[in-house]
Amino acid sequence: MELRTIGFIRSPFGKPEDAPSQGKRSKARGKVELLDPYAEGLKGLKPGQYIYLLYFCHRAERDALFSEKRGKGVFATRSPHRPNPIAIDLVRIIAITGSCLEVEGIDAVDGSPLLDIKPFVRDIDCA
Amino acid sequence: MELRTIGFIRSPFGKPEDAPSQGKRSKARGKVELLDPYAEGLKGLKPGQYIYLLYFCHRAERDALFSEKRGKGVFATRSPHRPNPIAIDLVRIIAITGSCLEVEGIDAVDGSPLLDIKPFVRDIDCA
Repeated sequence: MELRTIGFIRSPFGKPEDAPSQGKRSKARGKVELLDPYAEGLKGLKPGQYIYLLYFCHRAERDALFSEKRGKGVFATRSPHRPNPIAIDLVRIIAITGSCLEVEGIDAVDGSPLLDIKPFVRDIDCA
Repeated sequence: MELRTIGFIRSPFGKPEDAPSQGKRSKARGKVELLDPYAEGLKGLKPGQYIYLLYFCHRAERDALFSEKRGKGVFATRSPHRPNPIAIDLVRIIAITGSCLEVEGIDAVDGSPLLDIKPFVRDIDCA
């Protein structure tokens, strides 16, 4: 199972230590730049809409199974360090310009590879 | 970016046509069987808790960018057919036995490769 980079996230966070632990708790703005072949997939998205960004935590450790800091297995935490370091970041679309989205609520380190975008749907995403 | 299979989902759905479009709208029960090396990562999860299963839609088409059926780009839909077919399924844990979770709300086709488990946290996952 090989992942494809469909774009990159541009954020004010140059290092993992600078990034907020969760985007929802941040008002930071960033950009989502899709690679040209994938821009068609954005049709139908609108400013104001909430979306999930799925991105690859390219600086995460993949062999961690237990978080000493949290005293739990990694699957009981939201740590970026996990066997498949795929992060989910809920953001709000501010503007859409061609293949670029400006968003609010970013938590990714600058340059993180984008894997997917899904519209947030309360009815299916919230317990 | 290569993904690791950390387990498999066992469900009553043998074919994609049999599976509900979203697990949240289903009461179907299934099992999440982690491969032994990853079982340690479950420590701290508890019955009753809501979790997201991230799994690979191994039967999805990866070249689709526009959904004719929905009249939108795939990133504006929850279609399984997308460049990186990673599904997010919100389920509730019924029981935990060793490296196996029994869950309610499954939407995966039987045998889907499991990629990740994350605890649902309303404060960061809901708009």
